[in-house]
Amino acid sequence: MSNSASGLPASSHEKLPMHVYLERMTLDEKIAQLIQLAVPFFEGASDAGLITGPMASLGISEQTVHNAGSVLGMAGAQETINVQRKHLENNRLGIPLLMMADIVHGFKTIFPVPLAIGCSWNLELAELSAEIAAKEASVSGVHVTYAPMVDLVRDPRWGRVMESTGEDPYLNSLFARAFVRGFQGSDLAGDQDRVAACVKHFAAYGAAEAGRDYNTVDISPRQLREFYLPAYKAALDEGCEMVMTAFNTVDGIPATGNEPLMRKLLRDEWGFDGILISDWGAVKELIAHGIAADESEAALKAIRAGVDIEMMTACYTHHLNELISNGEVSESLIDESVLRILQLKDKLGLFENPYRAADPVREQEIVFSDAHRASALELAHKSCVLLKNDGILPLKPSQRIAVIGPFARSGDLLGPWSWTGSQDAIIRLSEAIRGKLINPAVMTVADGCGIDTATEEQWSEAATAAQEADVIVLALGEDSDMSGEAGCRADIRLPQVQLELIRRVQELGKPIVAVLFNGRPLDLHGVFEESNAVLEAWFPGSEGGLAVADLLFGDANPSGRLTMSFPFSVGQVPVYYNAFNTGRPQGAADAQVRYVSQYLDIPNEPLLPFGFGLSYASFEYADAALSSDTMTPEQTLSVTVRVTNTGAVAGVETVQLYVRDVSGEVVRPVKELKGFRQIELQPGESREVAFELTEEQLRYYHSDLSHSSDAGAFVAFVGASSRDNASLPFRLVK
Amino acid sequence: MSNSASGLPASSHEKLPMHVYLERMTLDEKIAQLIQLAVPFFEGASDAGLITGPMASLGISEQTVHNAGSVLGMAGAQETINVQRKHLENNRLGIPLLMMADIVHGFKTIFPVPLAIGCSWNLELAELSAEIAAKEASVSGVHVTYAPMVDLVRDPRWGRVMESTGEDPYLNSLFARAFVRGFQGSDLAGDQDRVAACVKHFAAYGAAEAGRDYNTVDISPRQLREFYLPAYKAALDEGCEMVMTAFNTVDGIPATGNEPLMRKLLRDEWGFDGILISDWGAVKELIAHGIAADESEAALKAIRAGVDIEMMTACYTHHLNELISNGEVSESLIDESVLRILQLKDKLGLFENPYRAADPVREQEIVFSDAHRASALELAHKSCVLLKNDGILPLKPSQRIAVIGPFARSGDLLGPWSWTGSQDAIIRLSEAIRGKLINPAVMTVADGCGIDTATEEQWSEAATAAQEADVIVLALGEDSDMSGEAGCRADIRLPQVQLELIRRVQELGKPIVAVLFNGRPLDLHGVFEESNAVLEAWFPGSEGGLAVADLLFGDANPSGRLTMSFPFSVGQVPVYYNAFNTGRPQGAADAQVRYVSQYLDIPNEPLLPFGFGLSYASFEYADAALSSDTMTPEQTLSVTVRVTNTGAVAGVETVQLYVRDVSGEVVRPVKELKGFRQIELQPGESREVAFELTEEQLRYYHSDLSHSSDAGAFVAFVGASSRDNASLPFRLVK
Repeated sequence: MSNSASGLPASSHEKLPMHVYLERMTLDEKIAQLIQLAVPFFEGASDAGLITGPMASLGISEQTVHNAGSVLGMAGAQETINVQRKHLENNRLGIPLLMMADIVHGFKTIFPVPLAIGCSWNLELAELSAEIAAKEASVSGVHVTYAPMVDLVRDPRWGRVMESTGEDPYLNSLFARAFVRGFQGSDLAGDQDRVAACVKHFAAYGAAEAGRDYNTVDISPRQLREFYLPAYKAALDEGCEMVMTAFNTVDGIPATGNEPLMRKLLRDEWGFDGILISDWGAVKELIAHGIAADESEAALKAIRAGVDIEMMTACYTHHLNELISNGEVSESLIDESVLRILQLKDKLGLFENPYRAADPVREQEIVFSDAHRASALELAHKSCVLLKNDGILPLKPSQRIAVIGPFARSGDLLGPWSWTGSQDAIIRLSEAIRGKLINPAVMTVADGCGIDTATEEQWSEAATAAQEADVIVLALGEDSDMSGEAGCRADIRLPQVQLELIRRVQELGKPIVAVLFNGRPLDLHGVFEESNAVLEAWFPGSEGGLAVADLLFGDANPSGRLTMSFPFSVGQVPVYYNAFNTGRPQGAADAQVRYVSQYLDIPNEPLLPFGFGLSYASFEYADAALSSDTMTPEQTLSVTVRVTNTGAVAGVETVQLYVRDVSGEVVRPVKELKGFRQIELQPGESREVAFELTEEQLRYYHSDLSHSSDAGAFVAFVGASSRDNASLPFRLVK
Repeated sequence: MSNSASGLPASSHEKLPMHVYLERMTLDEKIAQLIQLAVPFFEGASDAGLITGPMASLGISEQTVHNAGSVLGMAGAQETINVQRKHLENNRLGIPLLMMADIVHGFKTIFPVPLAIGCSWNLELAELSAEIAAKEASVSGVHVTYAPMVDLVRDPRWGRVMESTGEDPYLNSLFARAFVRGFQGSDLAGDQDRVAACVKHFAAYGAAEAGRDYNTVDISPRQLREFYLPAYKAALDEGCEMVMTAFNTVDGIPATGNEPLMRKLLRDEWGFDGILISDWGAVKELIAHGIAADESEAALKAIRAGVDIEMMTACYTHHLNELISNGEVSESLIDESVLRILQLKDKLGLFENPYRAADPVREQEIVFSDAHRASALELAHKSCVLLKNDGILPLKPSQRIAVIGPFARSGDLLGPWSWTGSQDAIIRLSEAIRGKLINPAVMTVADGCGIDTATEEQWSEAATAAQEADVIVLALGEDSDMSGEAGCRADIRLPQVQLELIRRVQELGKPIVAVLFNGRPLDLHGVFEESNAVLEAWFPGSEGGLAVADLLFGDANPSGRLTMSFPFSVGQVPVYYNAFNTGRPQGAADAQVRYVSQYLDIPNEPLLPFGFGLSYASFEYADAALSSDTMTPEQTLSVTVRVTNTGAVAGVETVQLYVRDVSGEVVRPVKELKGFRQIELQPGESREVAFELTEEQLRYYHSDLSHSSDAGAFVAFVGASSRDNASLPFRLVK
C-alpha cells in the first residue's frame, strides 16, 4: 500500500545506497541530520515560523532546517505531506524528513494510560492498542513514536508512573515486547500501518529520588540490572528500532552523556545498533547537570556517549564542526550516527515514498474508527481495577442513582500524553450511566466540587442531587495535569475538596460507590473506608465513560489487577511487593515486638498489593501442588492449582505464580512474579492451571554481575495476588 | 591510677604475652572469645541467670560463658567488679572479660542527643561530652562504648537520626573525630578515665529505604564513598579501636556478611586492624536476610567477612568448630580475631588490672558530678535551635506564663539511648521556668494532653491555665520511644492530639512559644505558622529543662544551627542541602514553568535548611571576597567576610563556607560544606572571618572511584546557612 492514491509527486531524487548519501553529504549536512526540531521550524507546517521562547534562542539557520534529519510532534496527513514536500524541495540530496511524535496510548482513539493497560495483564490487548495507535499515527504521517515507556516505578509521587506498566521487571518486559510488536509489527519495511518504536527512558528514569521528576537516580549497578534494565532489554530483543535517553543521572552521570551506560552497555554489550535519541533538550541539560561546562562540552559528551539525535537543542549543530576540526571528535562518529538515521529512513521506505502512509482520505476512514473504539472499550473494561465491593456493585438499572463529583461530567478521561486525542467525542460518565437506567429521568448529576476548588453552590447542588438517590456514584480523581511529565505530587491523597465532598456525602448515610480517575496509586485515606465500593478507573481513554458504566452495572466484569502497590500513605513510599526480607522481618517466628523492621504508626504492607483486584465472580484456589519438591537445571517443575468460580457470574481470573529464592549470594526479593495465566470461568466452573518453572527463571545477578542460579531452597507461590497465595517449597539441585 | 584503693585482689594469673595465650588456648576457648553475651549469663551479675526469651534459645553452655570474651550492657562499678572476679575464677587462663555498653550521649550525666550535639557545631563541647561520658562509664566498669554512631542521615522517618550528627559528610567526620578523641583520649592504655570507642554502623545504615529501620540500603559504590563512608573513615583515622557492622545490606549483601565491604575495603584498603563486632544478633540475621541457609553458613559468611565478635547469637559458638574441621574456615582466621580481642584487653590494661577504673567509691564522686552537669547544661544551651521568633522571645521574668503541654512536667528529656541515666534528677521545664519568674506564683502549668492521648479534663485544665497568662509556652514533642532504634514514623508531624492542643490554644489569641522535644526533624505544619516563636530543644539531656529556660529568658542566647533539613512535609523526603542540580533545576534562568524538577503541591526547598538557626543577636554579612578568582593546586584561596552583630545582645554566629563544583566528571552537589567558624560578637562588634580553601578540599570521587579535583569553574558561598549566603565564583587552574 502506498499513498500514490493521493496523487503526490514522488521525490524528484533517485534513491541512492545509504553509504553513498553519506559520502556525498557535507559535514554540515551530516551534522544537521543529527538535530531534531519542532514543527514550527518547518515550511509547510500550519504553525511554521512560530518560533518563540527557547526555540528562538536555538540559533537555527534556514540551512540547518533544510538539512535537518527529523521533526518531532508532527501529525496529520495533510500537514506532514506539506512539510515533507517542502523539505524535499529544500534538501540538496533529497533526504526525507523523519517524523516522530509521542503516541503513547493511542492516537485519536485513546486507550487507557499505560499503567491501566498494565493492570489488564492482557498482552494481546496491549499489543492491539499499540497496533491501532500505529495505524492511526502512520496514516496521519507519523513514522516513529516515542514509546513504549518501560521505566520500572515504585514511587507514586512521580507523575510519570501513569506511563509505565508498573513495579515488576518481568511484567514490564512482557508489556515492553507487546507494545513494540504492536507498534512495529513483524515487517516495519513492508507494513506501512506500523511505526518504528522508541523505547524509553534509558535508564532508570522511574527511580527519580523523592518522586520528583528529573531528579537524581542512584542505584547500585546490580540492582540496575536486576530490576530496571530488563524491560528496556526486552523491547530491544523484540526489535525496537530506537532508544531514548533518560533525563536523570545514572551512577552520577546524566544518561545523555553517559558513555558507560550508552556506549559500553547499550551498544557494546547489548549490541544495539539503532538510533539513540536524547530526550527533549537533554543534551544541553548536561550543563545544568554539571558535567559539561558549555554547549561544546555537552555536544562532546553526548556524541561520545553515542547519542545520534539531539532533540530540541543545538549543541551538535553549533559545536560538532569545531570538535571535529580540533580533533576531539572523529568524523567517523558522526558518520555512524548519520548512517543509523539514514538506515531507519530507508527501512521505513521513505526514500521510495517519503510520504509513506500519510493519506488524508484514508486518514478519515481509519482514525477513530468504530473498530478502534471497540478495542479501546474492551481494553478499558479490562484495565479498571475493582478495589472494594461490599455487594453494592453491580448497580441495577432500576436504581435511582446520583452521579456526583468533578468527573461526573468531565471529558478529562484521556489522561496525560493524549495530545492527538479529543475530549469532544467522549461519552461522559454520567451520560454512560444514564444509558444503563430503566428510567433515566430519575438520575441526578452534580459536580459537588471541582478538582481542587469548591463553592457552596456546588455543595448544595450535590446535596440536592443526592436527595432522592438509592446509591451515590462519586466520580473523583486527579485531573490529567496532576500526573504525567512534571506532574509530581508530595501529597498523593485525593485533593482536599474532594475528601470534604466525600465526608459531606457520607453524612447522608447512602451507599457510596467511588470511581477514581487518576494517574498514580493514591493514598486512599478518606475514600476507601468511606465507600461501599471503589473502582479504580485510571484515565480510561476515549471509551472510558462507557467502560466504567458497563463495569458498574455488571455488563462487563472487572478483571484488572494492580501492577503497582497502593501505599498505606505517602510516608510508606517506596513500597513494592518484590522487596527484600531484611534481617528483622516483621511477623517472623522469632520476631521481637519493637526491634523489627517496621513503622510505629502504620503497617509495612501497602493498602493494596501488587496483583490485587476484585471481580463480581469469586474464585477459590485449591490443590496447589508441585510436580516434585526438587528440580535440576535440566528439569522443569510443574506448579498446578485448581481454580473454581464459586460466584454467580462468569469472570476472568489472573492466576499468578511467584517464586522466592530463600538464600542467595546476594539478598533476593521475598517474591518475584514468574508467570500468570488469565482464565475465564463460568459460574461453578473449575479448571486446573499449570505453570512450568525452569532453572533459567531462577537466575539473578550476583555480586560480580554474573547471571545464574544457586542451588538451594526456593518457594513457589501460586494464587490470586502477591499477598494471597499458597506457598510450595522446593529445592534446586545442581 | 588504679582501683587498688578498692582493695581488690589482683588477678591470680600472671600476664603472658598475647600470642602465648593464643597458643595455650583450646579451639573451644578461642571460639568462646568471639561471643558476646548479655549480663544475665554471668555469675556475679545482679540479674545472673535471668536468661529468658531469645537468650534461652542460644544454647550457651556454662563452659562457653566461662570462656566468653565479652559482655554487653553491663555498667556499675560493684557489679562489674563482681562479674570480673567471678569470671577470672572460672576462666582457665585468667583472661579478663571485656565489658561493653551503649554509652551514646552520656552515662549518668546525659548530654543532648547526638543530632542536637551536631546542631551545636561545637566540636570542643562534643569532645568534652564524650570525655565525661567515658569518665563516668569507666569508673562504673565499662571498657568499650558502642559509639560514636556516625551514619549520614537524610530521612527523618528513620528513628535513629537522633543518634547521628546529620546530613553532611564533612561535619559528621569532624564530630566523629571529636567523639573518638573524647572517648579514647590520646592514651587509652595510660588513661583509665577513657574507654575504647566503637564506630558504627558500618556502613550506610542511615540510608535505610523508606526510613524504615533495618531496611534495605541500595547506593552506588561512588555515592557510598562520597557521602556515607567519610565519617567512619574519620573515626578510624582518629584511632577508633572498634567498628560495628550495620544491620542493613550494602550492595545486596548484609554488612555483617559482606566480604567486599569488610575484608576488602575496611581491612585491606583502609588498613583497619581493630575489632569488628556484629550488631545485636546480626550474624544469625544473615539467615533472615537470605544470604545464609542456616547458622553454619551465617557463621561462615561472617567470619570470612572479618567479623571478630558475634553479639548475642551463637552461630560461631555452635558452628566454627565444624567449619574448621571440614576445612571451610582456616583456624588462622579465628586466631586473628582472638588476637585482636586479646590485644584490646591488653591495651586497656585488663591483664594488669582486670577491674580497670571500676571503683564504687570514686564512682560516687565522679558520676553525675556538678562539673559534669555544668558541661551538660552548656552543651544543651548550644544544641537547641531557635527556629522562629517574631520578637516574643526572650521572655521576661515579669510575665505571667502558662506552661502547657505533655512536656511541661515531663522527665522524658533524656532521649533514646540513655538507659544509664535517670529522670529522677531532672529539673522539669515548668520548674525551670518557674525559677526565672519574679512572681512564680502566677505561673500556671497543665499537660493539655498526653503525647498521643487526650482527655476533656486535660483540655479544660489547659484552658484554665492559659486564662490569666501573658504568654503561653507550649511544651510539645515526641516521647523518647518515638525515635531511636526501631522508632520509625511514617507521619513525622507532631501527634494529632498535640496539633489539636495547638489549635485550641491558638483560639485564645495569646502569644505562643512552642518548645519542641523530639528526636527527628519534624514536619512542622500545625505548629510553625501557629506559634510566635519555636525553639527546637531536641532531647536536651539531664540539664535540658534548665537549659531551655535559660534560652527562653535570654540568660543564654540560642546559637544552634540545624545539621539536618526540616522537610516541608514527609512527601518531600529525602530532602537535603547537598543534593544535585538535575538537568532542569527550578528557578534557573531558562527554566520552564511546568517542565522543571519540582512538585505541583509543595516547594522543593525544605521548610528549614541545613545550617539554619536564629539568635537573639542579629548578624549582618558584608564584604564577602576571595583573595583571587583563580587558584592552583599549589595555592590556597582565602575567603573572607565581615560579620557584624547588629543586635542588642552578644551572640555566637556560625559562619559557614560552602563550595560548588560547577562542572565535574560526575554530577556534583549544589553546595558542600567546606568549613565554618563560630565567633562570639558583642553588640555592634564586627569581625572579619577568613577561610582558606585548598585544592584538596575540591576533590571528589570520580566514576572510576579515583579521588581528585578537576580544573574548571567553582563557586564559594559564605554566609549564615546553606540557604543564605553570598556566592563567589572562582576557577581551579591546573
